[in-house]
Amino acid sequence: AWAPVFVTRFMSTSAAAQVQAGEPASEESARCSGEKKEDKDVFSYWGVGSQKVTKEDGTEWKWSCFRPWDTYSSDLSIDLAKHHVPVTWMDKLARWTVKSLRWPTDIFFQRRYGCRAMMLETVAAVPGMVGGLLLHLRSLRHFEHSGGWIRALLEEAENERMHLMTFMEVSQPRWYERALVMTVQGVFFNAYFLGYLFSPKFAHRVVGYLEEEAIHSYTEFLKEIDNGNIDNVPAPAIAIDYWRLLPDARLRDVVMVVRADEAHHRDVNHYASDIHVQGLKLKEQPAPVGYH
Amino acid sequence: AWAPVFVTRFMSTSAAAQVQAGEPASEESARCSGEKKEDKDVFSYWGVGSQKVTKEDGTEWKWSCFRPWDTYSSDLSIDLAKHHVPVTWMDKLARWTVKSLRWPTDIFFQRRYGCRAMMLETVAAVPGMVGGLLLHLRSLRHFEHSGGWIRALLEEAENERMHLMTFMEVSQPRWYERALVMTVQGVFFNAYFLGYLFSPKFAHRVVGYLEEEAIHSYTEFLKEIDNGNIDNVPAPAIAIDYWRLLPDARLRDVVMVVRADEAHHRDVNHYASDIHVQGLKLKEQPAPVGYH
Ligand SMILES: [Fe+2]
Ligand SMILES: [Fe+2]
Ligand SMILES: [Fe+2]
Ligand SMILES: [Fe+2]
Repeated sequence: AWAPVFVTRFMSTSAAAQVQAGEPASEESARCSGEKKEDKDVFSYWGVGSQKVTKEDGTEWKWSCFRPWDTYSSDLSIDLAKHHVPVTWMDKLARWTVKSLRWPTDIFFQRRYGCRAMMLETVAAVPGMVGGLLLHLRSLRHFEHSGGWIRALLEEAENERMHLMTFMEVSQPRWYERALVMTVQGVFFNAYFLGYLFSPKFAHRVVGYLEEEAIHSYTEFLKEIDNGNIDNVPAPAIAIDYWRLLPDARLRDVVMVVRADEAHHRDVNHYASDIHVQGLKLKEQPAPVGYH
Repeated sequence: AWAPVFVTRFMSTSAAAQVQAGEPASEESARCSGEKKEDKDVFSYWGVGSQKVTKEDGTEWKWSCFRPWDTYSSDLSIDLAKHHVPVTWMDKLARWTVKSLRWPTDIFFQRRYGCRAMMLETVAAVPGMVGGLLLHLRSLRHFEHSGGWIRALLEEAENERMHLMTFMEVSQPRWYERALVMTVQGVFFNAYFLGYLFSPKFAHRVVGYLEEEAIHSYTEFLKEIDNGNIDNVPAPAIAIDYWRLLPDARLRDVVMVVRADEAHHRDVNHYASDIHVQGLKLKEQPAPVGYH
């Protein structure tokens, strides 16, 4: 359905044109598309930076950070209440790990759910990338197939990163929050990397429980919007295009689709852990597909 | 165009059914789809392992390691002769690094191009994954967009991994080759990771030159097939489906499309290095898109 349209060479003026057009989203999409464009001749030789992408309706696609074929509609009918009851000591350890992380988070953010969402998404996008990386390297080392799990986990990581790209349009990070993110990423990336090496079963279970907490947080976020404590501002343009929302969508609609995404991640990660519990490897069960 | 079809719950019998059908590709696709399937009830709860995917013509898709929407036709018209003339000392160092790696490779493999291709693809799939990982983490830490480069580099990694999945159907790795791959991956992953941290400009240039060498190797491979020194065996089923080849495609057709892929990677990586040469960051230029 989506056809990239190849135009002569290097469309270096497209972002500028959008900014001139003065759409409400122009500042946001300029941030995504890059603003400085120089030295067309240098770049044109390789012939790869030149593509123009059109939307279904034939108009030009304005984002370079994601493309029409990456967009999707969240499944809002997904069951938000599903829960993995801890059975083994490993389940209990995973749940305890997540619960103990929630305590400092609650104290730090209190009821600033926009800010909280933004900060937590910087962490949420790590596990999928680490899992995808390690399965990719394993597939190469062992000359074996992945059952689609590499793609599934990398897609989860990208989806979480898009959550971050969305929430940072709603609340701007302050300098000490930026500093905190650096530290937390350094610690969490390494911890999850080692954790996944030692026990993918445990790692996926932890993420499953993290997602259960995320669903809870976004439900609280919705309550605060409905209370009037948080302004139900218009949805950022990036969210409208990524989740195919209506043009007049608002923050509440964004939180709804993000929460549905988290419920999907919960299912995928508990499922992955369950596969390991059965004594199987992930590649022995086809990866989930078709959510987006 | 591709619609995943959701069928009741868990299609655990599909792989077995294919094997029974006794198609020529059954062993190959069983390797991809996983053979052991157990305990359907445990898995069905999460509702994510249940999708059945159909092809354009309505028949069932038999691979779980890649999906219809991951397939594409290589651009065989791509210019194979493009070359980045080393200008700076960094270019020269990058080219020298690649040339000096070629020497032991030539001695080790000599004219066993099938084996050589298989082994080199285990290395070729590393840079895209490392680059994608580091850009992903950077995007999260700095609350900034990626310009599509994360996806572009991860796609390159996945494409290289599919090259490996293809060539391992043609020549089986021996035990000492497996041992070699472990060692080489350990060294190369860490070297490229550090290299990319210090200088993405240099790292992408090295990959650009590696791809130029890859094009050369595959051209030699083609010559050996045309000579009759290498058997022009039927193409593996996975290659026919991944590159949308004709049902009677042969090894020669596979090498042609793989070589075109390498030429595309060459363009993307030299382009990425050129962006850095201009003093820009990757996110400031939209990533290539639309090759597949
Ligand atoms: Fe998220
Ligand atoms: Fe999530
Ligand atoms: Fe390759
Ligand atoms: Fe390549």
